[in-house]
Amino acid sequence: MSAQTRFILQEADLPKAWYNILADSPVAPAPVLNPITKEPVTPDFLSAIFPMNLIMQEVSSERYIDIPEPVLEAYKLYRPTPLIRALRLEKALGTPAHIYYKYEGVSPSGSHKSNSAFAQAFFNKEAGTHAMTTETGAGQWGSALSLACQFFGLDLEVYMVRCSYEQKPYRRVLMETYGAKVFASPTDRTQYGRSVLKEQPDSPGSLGIAISEAVEVAATSNGKKKYGLGSVLNHVLLHQTVIGEEALKQMDMANEYPDVVIGCVGGGSNFSGIAFPFLRENLKNGQRARLVAVEPTAAPSITRGVFGFDYGDSAQMAPIVKMYTLGHDFVPPAIHAGGLRYHGMAPALSALIDAGLINAVAVPQIPTFKAAVQFARTEGILPAPESAHAIRIAIDEALDAKEKGEKRVILFNLSGHGSFDLSAYEAYLNDSLEDYDYQVNPDEIVKHMPQVSIPA
Amino acid sequence: MSAQTRFILQEADLPKAWYNILADSPVAPAPVLNPITKEPVTPDFLSAIFPMNLIMQEVSSERYIDIPEPVLEAYKLYRPTPLIRALRLEKALGTPAHIYYKYEGVSPSGSHKSNSAFAQAFFNKEAGTHAMTTETGAGQWGSALSLACQFFGLDLEVYMVRCSYEQKPYRRVLMETYGAKVFASPTDRTQYGRSVLKEQPDSPGSLGIAISEAVEVAATSNGKKKYGLGSVLNHVLLHQTVIGEEALKQMDMANEYPDVVIGCVGGGSNFSGIAFPFLRENLKNGQRARLVAVEPTAAPSITRGVFGFDYGDSAQMAPIVKMYTLGHDFVPPAIHAGGLRYHGMAPALSALIDAGLINAVAVPQIPTFKAAVQFARTEGILPAPESAHAIRIAIDEALDAKEKGEKRVILFNLSGHGSFDLSAYEAYLNDSLEDYDYQVNPDEIVKHMPQVSIPA
Repeated sequence: MSAQTRFILQEADLPKAWYNILADSPVAPAPVLNPITKEPVTPDFLSAIFPMNLIMQEVSSERYIDIPEPVLEAYKLYRPTPLIRALRLEKALGTPAHIYYKYEGVSPSGSHKSNSAFAQAFFNKEAGTHAMTTETGAGQWGSALSLACQFFGLDLEVYMVRCSYEQKPYRRVLMETYGAKVFASPTDRTQYGRSVLKEQPDSPGSLGIAISEAVEVAATSNGKKKYGLGSVLNHVLLHQTVIGEEALKQMDMANEYPDVVIGCVGGGSNFSGIAFPFLRENLKNGQRARLVAVEPTAAPSITRGVFGFDYGDSAQMAPIVKMYTLGHDFVPPAIHAGGLRYHGMAPALSALIDAGLINAVAVPQIPTFKAAVQFARTEGILPAPESAHAIRIAIDEALDAKEKGEKRVILFNLSGHGSFDLSAYEAYLNDSLEDYDYQVNPDEIVKHMPQVSIPA
Repeated sequence: MSAQTRFILQEADLPKAWYNILADSPVAPAPVLNPITKEPVTPDFLSAIFPMNLIMQEVSSERYIDIPEPVLEAYKLYRPTPLIRALRLEKALGTPAHIYYKYEGVSPSGSHKSNSAFAQAFFNKEAGTHAMTTETGAGQWGSALSLACQFFGLDLEVYMVRCSYEQKPYRRVLMETYGAKVFASPTDRTQYGRSVLKEQPDSPGSLGIAISEAVEVAATSNGKKKYGLGSVLNHVLLHQTVIGEEALKQMDMANEYPDVVIGCVGGGSNFSGIAFPFLRENLKNGQRARLVAVEPTAAPSITRGVFGFDYGDSAQMAPIVKMYTLGHDFVPPAIHAGGLRYHGMAPALSALIDAGLINAVAVPQIPTFKAAVQFARTEGILPAPESAHAIRIAIDEALDAKEKGEKRVILFNLSGHGSFDLSAYEAYLNDSLEDYDYQVNPDEIVKHMPQVSIPA
């Protein structure tokens, strides 16, 4: 009998609480600023678009926050998710490394995004919200929130980045099947969308623009609609920590501990979800796992951006936060990893990277798809292009271990499946993909950042 | 704490053997006939297209056949699959029934088809085959065999029914990503394909035609290529019994036993896979589960076809078998459940239905999609249109139990996910689906059936 392939937890092993990194982080969080006054925001400002219960989570410093029973019930449709040892990939690489992946693609919406979507829909319902608005890039977040709003009885409007809307029509149909209304952003439904279309009628859109539209609709609804964000914010990262908490138990079942933990980053939520519980073990229990965030060279906010205060959206309506940024007016090339095209990075994650507790690396699109196809042909699962960034680095780590002749335990987060991304695979197989190497001029970025009195 | 949602087996619980219904069936199997001589086939005839080890499985009367270790290793990527209680669907229906579903969509190719694909590729490799040919309708079987051939180092040519090829381009790309070559059938690569195109240049194709093409390529390859079929044959049904064997253990974990077991039928393999182990319990251990096969009204081979000897394919090259059939030249309407468009039904299953041990029912396309959307909105998983036929009847059973005020334990096989079927969902949501009620003239069918000396 060969080595075990899958490490499977039971329903009773589901984490009962989310882990809040802010309780253990050695870095004090920077204040969140009002985009107009540039002074620290009041809960009142945020409550125009978020319900108070999620605002309290956003600013909480409690180490553990209980997962409400109805959210656990929704999680049980797909959680605990499997931890899988990539035995066939290891063999194909001829590496002494052991490669494990946590597979979040088993969720009904196909990615980790459901972990926060169910939570946000529940807390909105509890707070009396009747309808939500959101944006989506690749469509993973929009699909997840569409299902979650259906589960908890909320209406939903999704502003979908136009280039994804066109590349992935079936993602839209999935959201509609779950009961949501979907619009290609920029739209003519908002003041900001109309202003973008006036300047650039064929704008491919961006997450920054779509966020602005969804925020505008919520902010101008007289409190009837609230906005939900799929990444970046503290409470979203918090909800994703179920991934890492389960992975810790499962690595224990495998009698191993990772030397390196890898995830892709767009806004930062799936990476933070797997990495923060391991960071806790580094900070408090003497572990030394390296934590590696992987971004695309087409939108390299961490590796080539600036760490400072910037707007969360293009229209300068969202709060100003301290983060790695390429500038709030950055419109990335239309790479197929639509979920990794955000101009910034989660503030909590940015601060930990700046403090040297987490590493980051950028990879181009074509080597990423090469890794994705190798993974599909050995492990069977077709990865989402976003998740494939993590696979690229996991393979590189395994090859490095081979070269050095050392055993290395590698864990990565396979955040979603690629069943809606076959047009991207087709482009790769046809050799029609392009690589984008985004050349950054930090001075230009800084010039467009808001002037704030708090030193960046 | 509410009721348990998922019943999860460990790797160690994987069935170690397939269950062969022929060992326990009270119905003697009818002989398989040579399409030219119309006499019982010899292994020699079959060995032109199948390897001898699978031919021996096809005719075996052993009750249990061991699953080889390399096939178990491949199964471990996704098996054991979960058994899930549809608590949210039950609540939405307000039914006292308990609804369970076995979810085969967790396989890397997205359906139960991997269960036989891994086995067939392995046995072909063992027998020295270098390349395989096959047909695919919806693309589920083609995807599964593409991955399996990649795993075991075989080349693969897939003949894909043209209307599915056009409705589902991404299925093709998935097969290509796994390394297969895919052709829209009818093609100009075979004599039979060319003859069909000559008569009807815009033929939408059919499983019968695609089978003929794939068989012809194998049969005329001088033994270099072998053919693999995704359903109908005894050994395919055999490989699928891992579904029912696991489900028996999982119903036991739930402390329940099904009153009714439901699956959709095209060729019959996923239904047989879940139902045969329960039929064994009916025949040998005094259980009384009703077993219900669900077919589309657009291709109602069981409920409106004829039980008798017919060709397995359109070109009359495949063996003649005794089965429910709509005639080997039947070209079904282009319904979205492409996997349920075969003109016949597995002989082993047909005989058990004829003997009254298994029931069958037909449902139209639109009520089927209605059930699929209700399922997606309550349970989250988007079902394949094929599998949605089983959901329709599971819901009808639950509503019947509600009307009669009785508790009923319902188990159905959710044979695959619908991530590649969003164009079908779009058509449903746009009210542009049609229902097809195939009106059968049994005399016409009989007229086209081969004249054999063995009484039908």
